[in-house]
Amino acid sequence: MINPILPSEFDKQDRVFFADNVNPSFEVEVKSLDYGPASIEGYYDETLAAPFVVKRVVDAGRRGFDAVIINCFMDPGLDAAREAVEIPVVGAGESAICLALMVGDSFSIIDPGPRNYVSYAPTRQVRRMGVENRFVSVRGAGVPVLEITKDLDKTTERIRLEVLKAVEEDGAEVVVLGCTGLAGLAPKVQAKLGVPVIDPALAALRMAEVLVQLKLPTSRASYPESPEKPRKLPF
Amino acid sequence: MINPILPSEFDKQDRVFFADNVNPSFEVEVKSLDYGPASIEGYYDETLAAPFVVKRVVDAGRRGFDAVIINCFMDPGLDAAREAVEIPVVGAGESAICLALMVGDSFSIIDPGPRNYVSYAPTRQVRRMGVENRFVSVRGAGVPVLEITKDLDKTTERIRLEVLKAVEEDGAEVVVLGCTGLAGLAPKVQAKLGVPVIDPALAALRMAEVLVQLKLPTSRASYPESPEKPRKLPF
Amino acid sequence: MINPILPSEFDKQDRVFFADNVNPSFEVEVKSLDYGPASIEGYYDETLAAPFVVKRVVDAGRRGFDAVIINCFMDPGLDAAREAVEIPVVGAGESAICLALMVGDSFSIIDPGPRNYVSYAPTRQVRRMGVENRFVSVRGAGVPVLEITKDLDKTTERIRLEVLKAVEEDGAEVVVLGCTGLAGLAPKVQAKLGVPVIDPALAALRMAEVLVQLKLPTSRASYPESPEKPRKLPF
Amino acid sequence: MINPILPSEFDKQDRVFFADNVNPSFEVEVKSLDYGPASIEGYYDETLAAPFVVKRVVDAGRRGFDAVIINCFMDPGLDAAREAVEIPVVGAGESAICLALMVGDSFSIIDPGPRNYVSYAPTRQVRRMGVENRFVSVRGAGVPVLEITKDLDKTTERIRLEVLKAVEEDGAEVVVLGCTGLAGLAPKVQAKLGVPVIDPALAALRMAEVLVQLKLPTSRASYPESPEKPRKLPF
Amino acid sequence: MINPILPSEFDKQDRVFFADNVNPSFEVEVKSLDYGPASIEGYYDETLAAPFVVKRVVDAGRRGFDAVIINCFMDPGLDAAREAVEIPVVGAGESAICLALMVGDSFSIIDPGPRNYVSYAPTRQVRRMGVENRFVSVRGAGVPVLEITKDLDKTTERIRLEVLKAVEEDGAEVVVLGCTGLAGLAPKVQAKLGVPVIDPALAALRMAEVLVQLKLPTSRASYPESPEKPRKLPF
Amino acid sequence: MINPILPSEFDKQDRVFFADNVNPSFEVEVKSLDYGPASIEGYYDETLAAPFVVKRVVDAGRRGFDAVIINCFMDPGLDAAREAVEIPVVGAGESAICLALMVGDSFSIIDPGPRNYVSYAPTRQVRRMGVENRFVSVRGAGVPVLEITKDLDKTTERIRLEVLKAVEEDGAEVVVLGCTGLAGLAPKVQAKLGVPVIDPALAALRMAEVLVQLKLPTSRASYPESPEKPRKLPF
Repeated sequence: MINPILPSEFDKQDRVFFADNVNPSFEVEVKSLDYGPASIEGYYDETLAAPFVVKRVVDAGRRGFDAVIINCFMDPGLDAAREAVEIPVVGAGESAICLALMVGDSFSIIDPGPRNYVSYAPTRQVRRMGVENRFVSVRGAGVPVLEITKDLDKTTERIRLEVLKAVEEDGAEVVVLGCTGLAGLAPKVQAKLGVPVIDPALAALRMAEVLVQLKLPTSRASYPESPEKPRKLPF
Repeated sequence: MINPILPSEFDKQDRVFFADNVNPSFEVEVKSLDYGPASIEGYYDETLAAPFVVKRVVDAGRRGFDAVIINCFMDPGLDAAREAVEIPVVGAGESAICLALMVGDSFSIIDPGPRNYVSYAPTRQVRRMGVENRFVSVRGAGVPVLEITKDLDKTTERIRLEVLKAVEEDGAEVVVLGCTGLAGLAPKVQAKLGVPVIDPALAALRMAEVLVQLKLPTSRASYPESPEKPRKLPF
Repeated sequence: MINPILPSEFDKQDRVFFADNVNPSFEVEVKSLDYGPASIEGYYDETLAAPFVVKRVVDAGRRGFDAVIINCFMDPGLDAAREAVEIPVVGAGESAICLALMVGDSFSIIDPGPRNYVSYAPTRQVRRMGVENRFVSVRGAGVPVLEITKDLDKTTERIRLEVLKAVEEDGAEVVVLGCTGLAGLAPKVQAKLGVPVIDPALAALRMAEVLVQLKLPTSRASYPESPEKPRKLPF
Repeated sequence: MINPILPSEFDKQDRVFFADNVNPSFEVEVKSLDYGPASIEGYYDETLAAPFVVKRVVDAGRRGFDAVIINCFMDPGLDAAREAVEIPVVGAGESAICLALMVGDSFSIIDPGPRNYVSYAPTRQVRRMGVENRFVSVRGAGVPVLEITKDLDKTTERIRLEVLKAVEEDGAEVVVLGCTGLAGLAPKVQAKLGVPVIDPALAALRMAEVLVQLKLPTSRASYPESPEKPRKLPF
Repeated sequence: MINPILPSEFDKQDRVFFADNVNPSFEVEVKSLDYGPASIEGYYDETLAAPFVVKRVVDAGRRGFDAVIINCFMDPGLDAAREAVEIPVVGAGESAICLALMVGDSFSIIDPGPRNYVSYAPTRQVRRMGVENRFVSVRGAGVPVLEITKDLDKTTERIRLEVLKAVEEDGAEVVVLGCTGLAGLAPKVQAKLGVPVIDPALAALRMAEVLVQLKLPTSRASYPESPEKPRKLPF
Repeated sequence: MINPILPSEFDKQDRVFFADNVNPSFEVEVKSLDYGPASIEGYYDETLAAPFVVKRVVDAGRRGFDAVIINCFMDPGLDAAREAVEIPVVGAGESAICLALMVGDSFSIIDPGPRNYVSYAPTRQVRRMGVENRFVSVRGAGVPVLEITKDLDKTTERIRLEVLKAVEEDGAEVVVLGCTGLAGLAPKVQAKLGVPVIDPALAALRMAEVLVQLKLPTSRASYPESPEKPRKLPF
């Protein structure tokens, strides 16, 4: 599992979280990046992180891992990584949205922040996945990623509030948490709602296990091996 | 796992197949129906099978099973079953299509038969799932379900041919086998293609395991518990 | 016309309603089911009713009827029935939504209940019909089907309120009543709105007449005759 | 019924055709235009015809007609006419496509000509109607509208050929004839196909009858009455 | 540039506006219509204006202009004009929506009036363009076109209010002004929003320049030259 | 203008090409990357190039440029760059597809290579742009990017062949060249087709000029400025 950010307290938490949740036949190694941003809250961060994610994925491929999880809802480097290795690579965002399709009819995404907003237009990620007709809304909770754990009760409360609005005002029948920094929070905000709340980190873990067990290769038609050519990199 | 058809040789095969593939922490019981059709090749069969599927699902819920698999690509009784029980219920069709979204960009469905055809319009199931923009084509291989195992080499050859056409003529980057009667065939028709071929029975098995492990409830907003009311049934 | 529920007061009302509205060259026989639920308010009820609907349809085909109306917005057994007989079979939901496309640009569905809610995600039926881009919202009025006629004024008021909200808050330009139990109510809630309100029972009646008069066969490519095979049923 | 072209032999044929097919409680008057093109084969013709169609519609409204049919697949002046009068106005194209949704799953359009072509991208009309997901293909048969009746056998043969290709190569499950000049041809090209072929002139006739009988008003939210303002016209 | 309405004060304003904004290598001639409506606020007006627009376009083609702008958000006569001439023809609505796709992710349209409303269903124009998944909402500001300039401060205030609502309540990330009568207003309502507001008149001007400079022909496959045939017109 | 690849002969060609085509009031500086791949033929290359593209864009912003063109059909770093600077940033792929919407109804993309293929499923880029309903097909011409100029006649011939197939077999009404390495080729493959062929490099140049002249800001709602945070990079 790759945390596509600089080393942080998330690594330690995630080590515990993934160890607690992984199936017995697997083991998870948590790696963050040597280079990149401290958190991913937009395309700028995603783009800076992506080549280092790909490097970690290639490294994992060489070291004999069975699959790689990119532990961020924005799926940084996902497509590139799939071209670069033979083993399955999953992203937390894609996995969570995929899973949402299986437990209910329509879904909203709760983006922690930093802005507080609502939009009824499908996000780029949702359009890229081609699941616009299942999408209801995206809501921002106004919590910057690096402040998620500063006051976890407050974060939980804000997320819960947006989850509730998504369900009651927008008609969401499933809610997807839009950040792996919220790992473990789903049961707390889901209680009594009657609406499943998807944890993207767990979704990715399960999907990675599934792809390994199914021995299902990544489509080389979608993700062809990149041809040999000169590439010059400072890392 | 419910084979939504009358008892048949498929049950025995599926018992072996599912036992071979299930994760160690689970056990699969294979049940077919007391009433229903011998195979499901259209809406008529699906509709006749569905109430008996639901009955089996309710029974499984009462007997303490953790999840139920409806082992047919048409997902007979899936929505009703989700309303009827608390435990996760997965369908082979929905699971396979969902999984296809994770390993490549666009998918075709190979329907065994009975007709030999191609269509570029998304099927009702694909539209219902809201994934039309990932769909390429559906191709019928001209093999009636009850003849799949009569000459398995011939069946394999016909399926392989349509898989190839889907990839080369339509541009499919993932292929979904459109019948659980083809369980186990995927690796044989996938070889050397560079394109993953999804086995719907296996897809359903994995998704059932995932939903159990995630303790993710079915959305009661999508699948509300049916209110108490008079219902009169001859079974 | 098949009321896909157990015999009830609706049958009598519908006999009058359909007799009042049918074109002179047709006659309508109203039949409810020997088995099934007392009302259809979800997939569980729909699935239990469907095989008995199909049986009634097959029976109607044998008895020389020209067409069959399945008088429920959820269209239980519609696809199966089309495979089973040569004559046209129409569903109230499909007919109403189709008609909505002809009188305005965007439509909302008012679902009587039992829940009071709003959702901006296209329903499964709307997705199945492939008309998501014309859909605005679905609103639940909080009236259980079996209570519709208990206090008809109250029901009318609740429906009217949701119709109004659909028009003013969501931008609906046509409103589709989402239940045939509301037959006859459309003119009352439509008054002065400037927005047509579609009665699904009437829509189905008209569409059935149209298909008979056009001698338009059901597509055997979409609804192929089901092949002969063993089928075992307790009814 | 308005033939949105200059007076021609079509008028006489259509008088017979509509008289033969109309329901006993209705009478059809066929009117062509004083000004406009001799046939409509593109937007240029459609635009030139449209204001004269609207004039005819307004006139029909004043003269107490119950509904108006615009007898051309391109629906010239349809939207404008709906704003201009209280009575229902139907177009042959919209009616035919709507009806196609009720008899099968996916449809192709056969455009008489003048070009011979196939396209898998939804036409503007299909997109405007928002039914792209039910669309398969559009095929041009290479017969200019004014030559349709010159050699009717040849026309029939060309249309039949494209209908067949739509069904066998593209997977169409319903075929819509894309020109009212082909009125009456549907049964001839439909024979033995198992796939319904929609006659747009008949579709419009039936839909007009339905809207009148349902007393369903045109949505004033979609088609508001145009405000009073200076308008200067040379006709 | 064609103002598809009767001569009005808009012509003079537009002459200044276009002269101020056109690139040095171009010159703009502003022409209104001899016949048509005083303003375009619906399909009735659009249809009455369209043939006179086409006439002006054909005339411009003959007089050697390099391109034509149809200066109305509804794009009256656009498709017909493209068939009629070889030079590029652009519409203000299409140009503005196209441009919106390049500066942000999702857009709302602010329609001046005459009604005050909001709708979350894609408009016919948006569906025709096939960009529904980028659309958020359309809002009417309640200002009749002919009153836009009567009290420009009030108009600006009303537009600003709807722009704000589109951004804050609907989640619009770009706003398109839905009327060329609002030319020049964009900067005033855009200030401090962080969201671009598109002026359709300017969008059309730029797109016309672009198409001329690119020497990009209009697709004759989409807009074939209309075949010679009798056409009788009173103008 | 940024060539998102290592320095190459393309730089020199592009300097001439852009100088020849830019409007007099602008000047274009062509910059390639210090680090990155020699060509971009997939997500792996795109991801490796993107951060260096963003760096170049930030640099251009600081040096007072008015806009930046990312000269590759895959738009590497486009979203990130828009977050990073105030000035407009355009990508060749997005610009070309946007322009295609203005000159015809449906478009195909010709991807130079390296594979020779056809697919009828909208590409990720097309889905991300939300213009699936205008898309017809994507065809690969089997020419690796680095071999485009080796035998330009052969390349032209191969591209011309796929353009023709897109038009004749798929029904494309506009063709978009899917690689800026094909700059200048459009007129050669367009001749006599009646179908416009879009040059993505030129499309980007024009769109950049347009955005500068319109003073239209990038939407900060879509592309918010990235918050300050630790970021560690080896370049």
